[in-house]
This record gives sequence, structure tokens and C-alpha cells, in this order.
Amino acid sequence: MSQVAPTNRVGDGDGDDGGALGRDSSRSQITSIEGIPALSLDAISSVAYGPEAMLTVLAAAGAGALARIEPVTIAIVALLAILVLSYRQVIEAYPDGGGSYAVAKANFGPRTSRLAAASLFVDYVLTVAVSIAAGVAALVSAFPALSHDSLVLALGILAFLTLLNLRGIATSARAFLLPTAVFIAGTYVVIVSGLLRSHGATNAGYHAVALPKVAATVGIFLLLKAFASGCSALTGIEAIANDVPAFRAPSARRAKRTEALLGVILGTMLLGLAVLTVRFHIGPTSSQTVLSQITRASVGSGPIYYVIDLATTVILALAANTSFGGLPVLASLLAHDDLVPHVFGLRADRPVYRYGVVVLALFAAALIVAVNANTNAMIPLYAIGVFTGFTLAQSGLVRHWVRTRGKRWWARAGLNGTGAVMTAVATVIFLVTKFTSGGWVVAIAIPGLMYLFARIARYYRVVGKELGLGTVPPMPAPESNLVVVTVTAVSRMTSAALSTALSLGDTVVALSVQFDPARADALRAEWDRWDPGVRLDILRPETRSIAAPVLAYLRSPEIRAHREVLVLISEVEPRKIRHQLLQNQRDIILANVLRRRSDVNVVRVPFRLTND
Amino acid sequence: MSQVAPTNRVGDGDGDDGGALGRDSSRSQITSIEGIPALSLDAISSVAYGPEAMLTVLAAAGAGALARIEPVTIAIVALLAILVLSYRQVIEAYPDGGGSYAVAKANFGPRTSRLAAASLFVDYVLTVAVSIAAGVAALVSAFPALSHDSLVLALGILAFLTLLNLRGIATSARAFLLPTAVFIAGTYVVIVSGLLRSHGATNAGYHAVALPKVAATVGIFLLLKAFASGCSALTGIEAIANDVPAFRAPSARRAKRTEALLGVILGTMLLGLAVLTVRFHIGPTSSQTVLSQITRASVGSGPIYYVIDLATTVILALAANTSFGGLPVLASLLAHDDLVPHVFGLRADRPVYRYGVVVLALFAAALIVAVNANTNAMIPLYAIGVFTGFTLAQSGLVRHWVRTRGKRWWARAGLNGTGAVMTAVATVIFLVTKFTSGGWVVAIAIPGLMYLFARIARYYRVVGKELGLGTVPPMPAPESNLVVVTVTAVSRMTSAALSTALSLGDTVVALSVQFDPARADALRAEWDRWDPGVRLDILRPETRSIAAPVLAYLRSPEIRAHREVLVLISEVEPRKIRHQLLQNQRDIILANVLRRRSDVNVVRVPFRLTND
Repeated sequence: MSQVAPTNRVGDGDGDDGGALGRDSSRSQITSIEGIPALSLDAISSVAYGPEAMLTVLAAAGAGALARIEPVTIAIVALLAILVLSYRQVIEAYPDGGGSYAVAKANFGPRTSRLAAASLFVDYVLTVAVSIAAGVAALVSAFPALSHDSLVLALGILAFLTLLNLRGIATSARAFLLPTAVFIAGTYVVIVSGLLRSHGATNAGYHAVALPKVAATVGIFLLLKAFASGCSALTGIEAIANDVPAFRAPSARRAKRTEALLGVILGTMLLGLAVLTVRFHIGPTSSQTVLSQITRASVGSGPIYYVIDLATTVILALAANTSFGGLPVLASLLAHDDLVPHVFGLRADRPVYRYGVVVLALFAAALIVAVNANTNAMIPLYAIGVFTGFTLAQSGLVRHWVRTRGKRWWARAGLNGTGAVMTAVATVIFLVTKFTSGGWVVAIAIPGLMYLFARIARYYRVVGKELGLGTVPPMPAPESNLVVVTVTAVSRMTSAALSTALSLGDTVVALSVQFDPARADALRAEWDRWDPGVRLDILRPETRSIAAPVLAYLRSPEIRAHREVLVLISEVEPRKIRHQLLQNQRDIILANVLRRRSDVNVVRVPFRLTND
Repeated sequence: MSQVAPTNRVGDGDGDDGGALGRDSSRSQITSIEGIPALSLDAISSVAYGPEAMLTVLAAAGAGALARIEPVTIAIVALLAILVLSYRQVIEAYPDGGGSYAVAKANFGPRTSRLAAASLFVDYVLTVAVSIAAGVAALVSAFPALSHDSLVLALGILAFLTLLNLRGIATSARAFLLPTAVFIAGTYVVIVSGLLRSHGATNAGYHAVALPKVAATVGIFLLLKAFASGCSALTGIEAIANDVPAFRAPSARRAKRTEALLGVILGTMLLGLAVLTVRFHIGPTSSQTVLSQITRASVGSGPIYYVIDLATTVILALAANTSFGGLPVLASLLAHDDLVPHVFGLRADRPVYRYGVVVLALFAAALIVAVNANTNAMIPLYAIGVFTGFTLAQSGLVRHWVRTRGKRWWARAGLNGTGAVMTAVATVIFLVTKFTSGGWVVAIAIPGLMYLFARIARYYRVVGKELGLGTVPPMPAPESNLVVVTVTAVSRMTSAALSTALSLGDTVVALSVQFDPARADALRAEWDRWDPGVRLDILRPETRSIAAPVLAYLRSPEIRAHREVLVLISEVEPRKIRHQLLQNQRDIILANVLRRRSDVNVVRVPFRLTND
């Protein structure tokens, strides 16, 4: 047996082994269509905040400027087209999953991959926070009575998602199919009905803001800002390329098809909504989302409106949920490269998974509280991180094509190069136009994370050197050893512990700490009567401490004469958890002290009770 | 070497081994005089609240009733005399330390000793809470501006004492000597100057409350209530008898002398203060303590007043502090008798000590908050617990004398019997008169604790039976064993771990979990190149979990063929604590899962880094 059959189970065995972690085991299962609910919710749901982000910027120049959403959206859809084509090439080049981190790592130095890692980390946090805030805004649009409780609602949804993920509830692509279908179909219904309606007939009540009708010249800077904000609608289109192995074979082909499908859906939605915005003279308000206003203007305020609005909330919450699944995967990649603690490599072990879930939730909660659940306040932060990732992935691809020089490498490099330049320009626009309104947070967070990653990598390098990784270590050889068994009484447990000790040790000594002289004498007498063939040493410290006398004993010359000393602490293992309070605590204290303050090895041997 | 010289050090070795725990090592050192600051602060400081508690009761019957404090105090001092004589006999009979628990255990059944234990536990909590609240009241009397912050001040002092005790700051009897001397001397100065002053000359401003001057007949019930409340001045006189071994030899003689000294000091103080109360027409107010009023009336509001008042606060805080040292001693006695988890037997090991400190602080804080730092609200609770202990100790002593029938046993039994009857009557008076004003809390807490103690004792009995305590267990014998060493790479650490494993095991297998096929192959190649003579099994689970595949591996028939399986987890032990986050976490997860879900024994072998 050199290899046990690989297990297909997940979880650390806290009882329920399935759950969210089970996603791994259903891998290689999704089709092109299922790729939309499974991997594209973040992208699709961003139509709920992208157009609104644009309008919010344009509104600063007066109601007349709102119509500029059309040319700006066209520019964004053009960028979308380039990015989709670009990411189809990423899928082809990195069929094992080519997130911006993987691409940057393969084509650039460690510093650039740390930049990619940091921006991805920021993105995961922001996806959660932005999606939840936008979901709450959709809910409040339908139920204005909730408008004062946005923050509480957002934190409540976050808490719910966190709990779901801590419990490890299964989240399968199929369960996502229905709300995704409702949302997409609903949005198309809105667009088509809106286009069919006669110009501005029914929406008199929905021209919400009374903006100054000044014929302001809409400056290029404002248009750039609107473009930058609108680009938040493109977040998430990289997700498919990150997770190509999730598709059924031929996985790259299917993934490329999903990417194209996503591009078509997202592009037509954005264009359609932009046209309706202008047609219905819709502007940003604080009480209703733009999407909600468009929906009401198109299909009225009847049941269809409520179905679409609730589907929006659900889809946004599911998009947030996806991040909870994604962060552990990223952390595990980073652990592999020494950028985060190695323990994150075990992402399927429940404690690790839980740790990641809690960290993500705390960051997202802090962000939501900081901006009072206002989506638009987070858009600049969001776009900076995402577009940094886009730029890194594209420019990495350029290097890839130039290096590999495959068929038509210049066309491919040209396409990715165009994408890289456009997204790089967009990133700079974000940073410049949004620096004071939140961008600085990202400008601090990303370098901060990069520094942390670098320090961690350096630590592991130093340790690796000290361990002599890569060199041939000395041959192992057995040493003379001594096993010290702690005993408190003569019992079946003592007998079992001595058996284990005799199996392990060349020499075995039993050791007991007794504070009460009478008990010490009684133990000695009982031991001599039993006569198990093992010497018993009794310590009688003056103070009621077990740790100090045992440490002193282990430092005595006779004990130190042995090269290897193992302290075997046998302990009662009760059936009921609450009985742990009554048992083992002194063993835990002793084990911890010995581990910290002595050179000996410690093994705690449980003796399992059946009747307690 | 059957016994290493007993260590005189305390602490689990968190670095600083001295500290409060060090009290133990300076035992057998104190003289009769030092016994006052070391063991009698609780008793002496109770003059700060005892007389006030009486006046508060009497005030209900009008200003005229206040003068009844004199006869009631005489009754209390008579009881004090009996208790002091009685406790001198306790010291004689139980020179190893005869707290009410020890006496009850020696002379009554387990139920009665559990009653004694429960009432002692309640006393420790109340000593802390009452002393701190009274100390704050003294402070507020001098600085009325603080009057709205009593609760915050009380919690602040409690937090400070808790931190001191968690840090293990040394508290020696000698350090207590000065404030104790100032307090006692100051109180006598107050009494003497007050008696020398002409009748009511200077205290016009201090007759604080305008009580109705009705010539109410002061009923016997009111007098009993006043007596019961005033008995709170007697709390703490048992402390000397609890801790006889703390005295320098001849310890019993010295302890008896201290007890007598305490009786004289406390009795004269109480009588003197009662006379001054009447002379200066002092009654309870909400803004100033009775002791503060008496002090001002006697010595004026100059610097002497402030010195005495601050000494009162300090002495009360020190009295609270004494409880923090006393509870671990009690817990250790109870652990010896299976009434509380055995871990409390290790009271000198720092984690145990800290646990006791925190528990005591939390209970005291809850109580202080519940009564809003009002001393008088806690007096009934306090007296019930203390007098239950008095009664148990006295009646235990009666049984002791009757049983041993020594010289003049009938006189001794008579004295203790009188004390027992008087304190029993007092206890009943408290319970009846104070039941609705807080006494019910104690009436629930004490039986509740007794039940808990009984359950714990029962658990240990059941476990002892299952372990076969008292029977001769089977002979230990070595078994065929297997040591599984987890490895992640070929390194010096791996070599060291294999050496340890070869020392311990008959058969040794190395086991590695690898998620990345390339790394798995590299490890295999490196292993074969090294060829350490130990087989390497590599697990390649599909999911990124280490726990599940290792569990499955250990359940395979080949492994289960060995009777004893030890999993040796070698782990890097960094020098800096913060680097623990980067290291060992996966080992901890694996160790915990194996301990919980398999039958194997686990030993974590640290490899200590020097350069990280």
C-alpha cells in the first residue's frame, strides 16, 4: 500500500461532511448554461448597480446630462466585448483556471503576483459588501417602509449568509438556476415592454429628481468619471476563467461558450437599460433604485414588478454568497505559494473554511457599516480592485502570447493588449477621479496586503533554509529513549497507559505528583502491592502546582541522560462533553507547560469511558 | 531517585513565577501582630459598614430609635466575645486550619460539609462585593463630587484588583501593615477625641437626617433586625482559624493570641462608635457614611479626616483582595474531596489560579451591578452565608468535644454550644427578616451550589468505579506498535522526527498528504534519493482536506493490524509567538481531529527554530 484510494469526502468530520465544501466533489459537472448561475451571478447582477452608478455621476451636471448614459454605456459595452474576447483567450491559455493571480504568477515576477493577490482579496470583500447593499436597495425600492432600516437589513443578510456558510449548507448551481432565470427573463421583459411603450407615456410619476435643467457642457472629465463608475457593471466577468475545471469536458470549450453567453446577456441588458433610462427620463433618487424605476415605468407596479424586484435581491445575495465560496479557493492558492499561512491550503477542512468565512464577513460588515449600506459609496473601491485584476490578466496574456508565439500570436496579443491598455486606463481614471471619495482606502489596502504577503513569504523562506529544504538531511537513527507515564492512582487506566508506554519505550518510569502525604503513602503501598514492573516516582511539592515539580523532575540528570524523553499523560475521556470540565484539565495544563518549557515530547493518551 | 527535592516555586512558568501565589512559600512566617493585617482585614474593616447597617434598620422607627444602637451593639459585642472564645477553641482543635468546611467535614456527613462549602463560596463573593462597595462609599463621603459615579468606581476598583491578581502581584502581610495601623490608630483617635468632646457641641451640621421624632415603641422585631444587620460587623473573624499554619511556631498559640487581639480591637471599636453615634445624633444618609460622619464630628474635616477616610477605603479594598487569595485555597480543598473539578487542586498553577480569579470577579461584578454598588443592599446576603458557616463550625466543635471527651470537655462544648445556638438563631433571624430584601438570593444560591457539588461528587464516584479504583488492575504488557510520522517535505525536521519515531516504534511509516500531483511526485523522488529506510505513503485526496484522508488511512486494515498506533506530527516551533499563526495550524487541526475521531494516540513533536 503506497497510496490509499483518494477520498471524495470533505470536511474535517465535525459530523456533517457535505455542505458548501461539497462543491468540490461535484466539480467537472456543469454545462455551459449552468455556468451562468454557477459562475456569472456577480457579473449579471451588476446591472442592478452599474447604470445607477453612471447616472449618479452624470446627475451632477444636471438633468440634461443624464442622456449621456447612452454613449457612455456604448463605450462600456465595447470594453465588455474586448474583455469577453480577452477572457476567452485566457480560458484557452490557462485551462486549469486562470485567475488574474495565476496569469500574473506565470508571466510576471512575485511582486506583480502579490499585487494580483491583494486586489483579488479586496474584490472578494467588496463583492460581498456591494452585492448585499444593492440587494437591500432593491428591497427598499419595493417596500419604502423599510428605508430607515437599510443598514440593519444589510447586516442581517450578511449574518444570514455567514451562518449558512459556517454551517456548510450546500449551494449547488442547480438551486441557483431558477432565480437566475427569473432575473434574466424579467430584465428582458422590462426592456422589451419598455421599448414597446409609446415615448414617455406612463412614466410621468417616475421622473424622480428635479434636477436643474441647465444646458451645462458635460465635460470630458465627467464623462470619464461616469465611464469609470459604470465599469462596475463589468465586475465578475473574470469568474468563469478562474474556474474552468468546474465545467464538464471539454471544459475549455464550454467555458468559452459561457463567457460569450455572459457577454451577450450583460451587453444587451446594459444597452437596453440605458435606452430606457433616457426614454423614461430616469435619474438617481435616494428612495428607489434606477432599476426599480425602470421596471415600474415598463411593467407598472403590479405583481410582475415585485417578482422582478425580489429576484434582483435574491440574485444579489447569491452573488455575495459566491464570494464566500471563492475566498477559500484563493487562499489555498496563495498558501501554496507561501503568501498566506499554510493552513489555508487545507480549505476543505472545516476549521480553515470557517476561519475564512468569518474573516470575509467581518471585513464586509466593517465596510457596510462605514458607508451606511450605501452602494454608490463602495463603487469606486470596487472598480479599482477589479480593474487592476483585469489589467494584470490581460497584460500577462500579452507576455504569454509573445513568449509562446503560437498561431496568430500577434492577433491574440493585440486583442489582449487592447484590453490591457483600456483597463489600465480605466484603473488610472478610477484612482484619479475617485481617490478622495474612497479610492484612497484601496490605495492603502492593496499595498498593505502586498507587504504582508511579502513578509510571510520571506518568513517561510527563512524557515525552509533552516529546515534544510532542498538539501539531503542526516539519516534518521533510533536513540535511547525513556517514557515517563504520569499516574494519579492505581487503576485500569494506569494499566492501559503503562502498556502503551512499555510498547513505546526502552525504559519506562511512572511519575505521580501528590500534595497530600497520606495519599502519597497510600499510592506507594498500592503500587507495591500491584507491582507492575515499573518504577514509581512520587513528587511531593510544597505548593499545589503540578507543572513546576514535573518540570524540575524532567531536568534532573537521570532523566536528561536519555536522548529522547516522551511524557505519556493518560487521561479520562468522558462520553459527555460537559464532563470535560471535570476531567483532563490538569492534563491539558501539564501538557501545555511541558510543550512550552521543556524539550520532552508529550502524548496524551485518552482512556475512553462508557458509563459516565 | 524516588523523589526529587520538593520545589518551593509556584506558578506554571508563564515567566514570572513569584507573585501572589508566592504567599504559600512565605507561610509559617507571620507573628501574632502580623496576623491582624494578614488575616483580619475583613473583620476589622467591617466596622465601616456594620454600625451603619444597624442605624439603617433603626431609622425606620424614627430618630428616637437610633439611640437603640447602644444596647444592640452590646449584644453584638457579647456575641463577638463568645465567637472569639469559640474560635480559639477551633484553633486548638484543628491546628492544621479549621475553616467551617474542615470542621463540618470532620464532624458531620457529606451533606453538611457541602452546605459549609456552599456558604463559604457565597461569602468569598460577598466579601469582595461588600468591601468594594463600602470602600467606594467611604471615598464618596470625602469627595461628594464622585457621588454619581459610585458604580463605575466600584467596578473600576474591582477591575484593578482582578488585574493585580491575574498578574500575580505579591501581596505580603508586611505591605498591609501600614494601612492597617493607620486605620486602627485613626479609628481610636476618632473614638477618643469624640469621647473627650463636650456633648454634641461641634456636630450640629452632621445630624444629617431629619427623621420623624415620633416616640415610637421600638418593637422587638426591629431590634432583632438591627441585631441581624449589625452582625455583618462580625464577618471575617473566622479567617484566622482557617489559616493557622500561616503562623510562626507555636502556630496555634500565636493564632489564638491574634484571635483575642482581633476580638478586643473589634469590640472596643464597635462600642466606641456606637456611643459616638448616639452622642452626635448621627443617622444614616445617602451622601455620607456613618463612619465618615462620626469622624468629621470627632476630628473635624481637616487633613486627619482625609487620612482616616482614605485609610478606610484602602483597608476595604485590601479586605476584598484577601478573598482573591482565599478562594483558590477553598477550591483546592473542595477538589480534594471531589466537590469541584479536580483541576482546582492545582491552585498554584497559574491557569487554575487565573480561572478562580476571573470567576470570583465576574460574580462580584454581577452583584455590584445588581445592587448599584449599595452596600446595605448586600448586607443581608452577606450575613446569612457567614453565620451559616459560624453555626456549622461551632456545632461541629460541640460534636468534637463530646466525642473526644478531653479535659473539661463539657465546658468547651458548652461554650461552642452557646455560640452555635446564638449564631443559629441569628441565621434564622436573617433569613426571616431579610428574605424578601435579598435573602432569597442566598436561599437559592446555597442549595444550588450544594446540588452542583453533589452531582460532581457522584460523577467522580462513577468514573472511579469504571477505572477500577481500589481493585487490582491487569498487569501492563507491551503490544506490537506502529508509529506513523506525518511529513510534508524532506528536511532536517523530517530526519529528526523519523529518529524519534524509530526510537519509539517497532514499525515506522511516513505519511504525507499532497494536493498537488507535481509536488507529490517531487516528494517521492526526493524521498527515494534520500532513502532513510522508512516507507513513505503519499495520500492524494481530491479535496483540500488533510483530516479526512488521514482518518481514512488510519482506518485501513493494514494500519489497524497494529494494536498500538501512534501518530507523530512533527511541527516547526517558531521563536516568535506571532509566527505561530504561520506554522503548526494544520498540525493542530489534524491532531484535534485524530484525537476526537480515531483511536490512535497523537504526539506533536516540536522542531525548534533559532533564526526565524
